[in-house]
Amino acid sequence: MSESDNKAVVLLSGGLDSATVLAMAHAGGFDCYALSLDYGQRHHAELAAAKRVAATLGAVEHKILPLSLDAIGGSALTDRSIDVPEAGGEGIPVTYVPARNTIMLSLALGYAEVLGAEDIFIGVNAVDYSGYPDCRPEFIAAFQAMARLATKAGVEGVKTTIHTPLIDLSKADIIRKGAELGVDYGLTHSCYDPVDGLACGRCDSCLLRQRGFEQAGVADPTRYA
Amino acid sequence: MSESDNKAVVLLSGGLDSATVLAMAHAGGFDCYALSLDYGQRHHAELAAAKRVAATLGAVEHKILPLSLDAIGGSALTDRSIDVPEAGGEGIPVTYVPARNTIMLSLALGYAEVLGAEDIFIGVNAVDYSGYPDCRPEFIAAFQAMARLATKAGVEGVKTTIHTPLIDLSKADIIRKGAELGVDYGLTHSCYDPVDGLACGRCDSCLLRQRGFEQAGVADPTRYA
Repeated sequence: MSESDNKAVVLLSGGLDSATVLAMAHAGGFDCYALSLDYGQRHHAELAAAKRVAATLGAVEHKILPLSLDAIGGSALTDRSIDVPEAGGEGIPVTYVPARNTIMLSLALGYAEVLGAEDIFIGVNAVDYSGYPDCRPEFIAAFQAMARLATKAGVEGVKTTIHTPLIDLSKADIIRKGAELGVDYGLTHSCYDPVDGLACGRCDSCLLRQRGFEQAGVADPTRYA
Repeated sequence: MSESDNKAVVLLSGGLDSATVLAMAHAGGFDCYALSLDYGQRHHAELAAAKRVAATLGAVEHKILPLSLDAIGGSALTDRSIDVPEAGGEGIPVTYVPARNTIMLSLALGYAEVLGAEDIFIGVNAVDYSGYPDCRPEFIAAFQAMARLATKAGVEGVKTTIHTPLIDLSKADIIRKGAELGVDYGLTHSCYDPVDGLACGRCDSCLLRQRGFEQAGVADPTRYA
């Protein structure tokens, strides 16, 4: 095993899921290089959470790349002209950011190549986020196939692997897993529409998170507005 | 054919190749939405060229997304600690930007989804840039397969197509094609290491461009330092 075989890039949003992924990758023996994307979202509270999470869960490095997607618009999370919905609804939510996971994984791929890392971790979940096409296993498989053709490292024989350890877990399973690994979920942020940095308690993301803690039988450390 | 079937996103660097692609897409009847990436490169002269090219070759819109890749480093074009080489050399050049085409195509995919566009044009070339893994047809095919699984539009049946009209052309062929379509190559910029905004005449990119004009039998409008 060469020196670089232990390095992994971990996409870190500051939310509950990616914090759990970072803890899992770290527990699995990887030297974790966390990468967050500041894509002009309204919830900068999430990036502040990402910094806290990276610092406490053993990341070797934490890079935050600014990328304003405001110019291309198209999501309630990046476009100020679209209201964040309070409740559920059917199909693909308006909070879907066009090609977000594709963009995040592409940046992670560039970072991995610079580091000489073969492994990329992302906290996608096909159970709770079934409305998001870029959370499906078939998307991840296609991205990995593309990634192996995309880089100088790939040409030289590096087999990039996209790890999705949460993909089949329920929110309660994720919380139980993180609690076992000592993740302090009080440091994480999931709310789409925070009030003075506190979770709103009403958006889809808050409701999903609340139910997860209830079902996991783990005390919810979230501070609500 | 629905209203949106005419829209295409065209990746535009400001160089000779992407200007030719924009002219070809426009001539092919597409409403062209140009997208440039300001990734912290040293040659802002190229972005100034992209603006001139978009304005003169009929782009409906031209978006420039700032994305600083300096934080992850790894290329002579984005990392100030690596010198730009003057001459050729073997294998993959140090001017290779990690995962650049993957990142650019991902952003184009997000923009295309917002626009309701099925078509994305990129000026990759497998002849002159054989050292770049993300200029190969197999990479483009894999990206397209991934893109069709990545987006809400894809789930709803949109078949994203990645067009690479230059992929098999020599530089001379590209220049002849653009000259036929009335491209003013004096507006474009190819140099890796410009001097006061003028082409250096010595880097790989300048040499390739000079030979292309010679072989095409087209007068070279480039102003050299």
